[in-house]
Amino acid sequence: MYDLIIIGGGPAGLTAGIYAQRMKLKTVLLEKEGLGGQIALSDIIENYPGFPSISGMELMQKFEGHAKGLGLEIKLTTVEGISLDGNWRVVKTHEGELRAKAIIIATGAKPRKIGVPGEKEFLGKGVSYCATCDGPFFRNQKVVVVGGGDTAVKEAVFLAKLAKKVSIVHRRDQLRAEKILQEKVLNTPNIEVFWSHMLKEIKGTKTVEGVFLEDMKTNSRKYVEAEGVFVFVGINPTTDFADVEKDEKGFIETNERMETSVKGIYAAGDCRVTPLKQVSTAVGDGAIAAYAAESYIEELK
Amino acid sequence: MYDLIIIGGGPAGLTAGIYAQRMKLKTVLLEKEGLGGQIALSDIIENYPGFPSISGMELMQKFEGHAKGLGLEIKLTTVEGISLDGNWRVVKTHEGELRAKAIIIATGAKPRKIGVPGEKEFLGKGVSYCATCDGPFFRNQKVVVVGGGDTAVKEAVFLAKLAKKVSIVHRRDQLRAEKILQEKVLNTPNIEVFWSHMLKEIKGTKTVEGVFLEDMKTNSRKYVEAEGVFVFVGINPTTDFADVEKDEKGFIETNERMETSVKGIYAAGDCRVTPLKQVSTAVGDGAIAAYAAESYIEELK
Repeated sequence: MYDLIIIGGGPAGLTAGIYAQRMKLKTVLLEKEGLGGQIALSDIIENYPGFPSISGMELMQKFEGHAKGLGLEIKLTTVEGISLDGNWRVVKTHEGELRAKAIIIATGAKPRKIGVPGEKEFLGKGVSYCATCDGPFFRNQKVVVVGGGDTAVKEAVFLAKLAKKVSIVHRRDQLRAEKILQEKVLNTPNIEVFWSHMLKEIKGTKTVEGVFLEDMKTNSRKYVEAEGVFVFVGINPTTDFADVEKDEKGFIETNERMETSVKGIYAAGDCRVTPLKQVSTAVGDGAIAAYAAESYIEELK
Repeated sequence: MYDLIIIGGGPAGLTAGIYAQRMKLKTVLLEKEGLGGQIALSDIIENYPGFPSISGMELMQKFEGHAKGLGLEIKLTTVEGISLDGNWRVVKTHEGELRAKAIIIATGAKPRKIGVPGEKEFLGKGVSYCATCDGPFFRNQKVVVVGGGDTAVKEAVFLAKLAKKVSIVHRRDQLRAEKILQEKVLNTPNIEVFWSHMLKEIKGTKTVEGVFLEDMKTNSRKYVEAEGVFVFVGINPTTDFADVEKDEKGFIETNERMETSVKGIYAAGDCRVTPLKQVSTAVGDGAIAAYAAESYIEELK
């Protein structure tokens, strides 16, 4: 029996854990794979204030050390579902049931992969799923953007301010993005669009050097030089196990106190509907969620 | 002429500066006194993830170094007002006018002081204005809480979980806090209330050792031993210069994108209406404000 169960050990979950321990809540954090979340896969992070340049893994080890130093209990297990039993919130895991007065869901989200050779090998070495995070590493270089929706096009326009050249690779012969974004793409001189093309392979030695594209109408292949490949073909939150209100993509709806549609259940970080997905914002979410959960637990007494 | 003017150099403002520089916005940050904001006055911070224990000053020097390393321009000047001129946002300072496409207000808030001897001298050495921040430093010690409103009472109940004893000092003979909180105070064995008392002086050598109280009905004085004094008599945001929508206390109303009631003007950190005022949350706010401002500036083109 716990006061609080935190599901997920990325920046939001670990921050919630730090706050919960300091507030003397009996807390356990459940993590499926390894602590750190998506950001632990990033080669370099330069926008978490206080650390001008650090690897994602190293930063998350600092978070982990911080939380463990405060005595946070961490269990490696997979969560299968959440249910309610009066004022108890019940988490079903592979190893059995855990009960708590409140739950914070901080399970994050994963960018969809395109599934081509080189994508996995060059992750953090030229392949990225976040322009805000990694765009500045490609100043005056050439980058390829995969996708044609709002995010892909918006990020392409942003990247064009930093990079020498941006090549959008899109399977269709027109962009799905909203019209104002489309116009911006077409009016930005250093953006070119490969219509009806698929990215087939990412090439390089230590880092990305170029990509092979295939023209879907002629089946011909071409090689395009690029130091960066940004993939924006969607992002999936890890929220299937939780029966709370979500948007059409599965991101959890909360208010500014991180309260979900179910009392005593909170969400923090990338798994919720947010305007921005960053370590900075996950940390803010985690702190608020723990604070709000503490108030709720106190009220139950 | 700038893309972005950031007003205030605490955690929110410096984070916005870090993000703005990385997004290549032509940015200036205006600071009145010295960088770092309220948190620079804290002796120790143990809840900004990644730094298990660091002084407020040192943490803010890291933020400052991070922002300056990215080339952020910082001007020391006082802001007198903000006005609109078409799509320009105009900031009037002591040294003249500055123009930008967008403004982020990150001017913070200051706790109201009680104005007694010892309050200033022992700031960060036993005197605190934030239980979430500093409560855990007083485990199994005796603390005094000054105030009788919702915040004072809520924080007293929270502190009672950590401290050995909590003494509430309140000028009136009843609490102003909501009834459920009042009942909690009266039912918590290690909270005592000094009704109709004023705190007159904080005593100590290197750190706080006790306080002198005055009974307002009899004018008699008494000495109460305590290692900590928590003051909750209100908090004032620094927002007079800005003509945007605010709550009754002067905190700026925003949506989750940090947009104020005026287009192109954003607010971040303690100066806005927030559920929690922490470095962690200010950092999240600052990142979102810069991101939203960048999108707005891009749309103006």
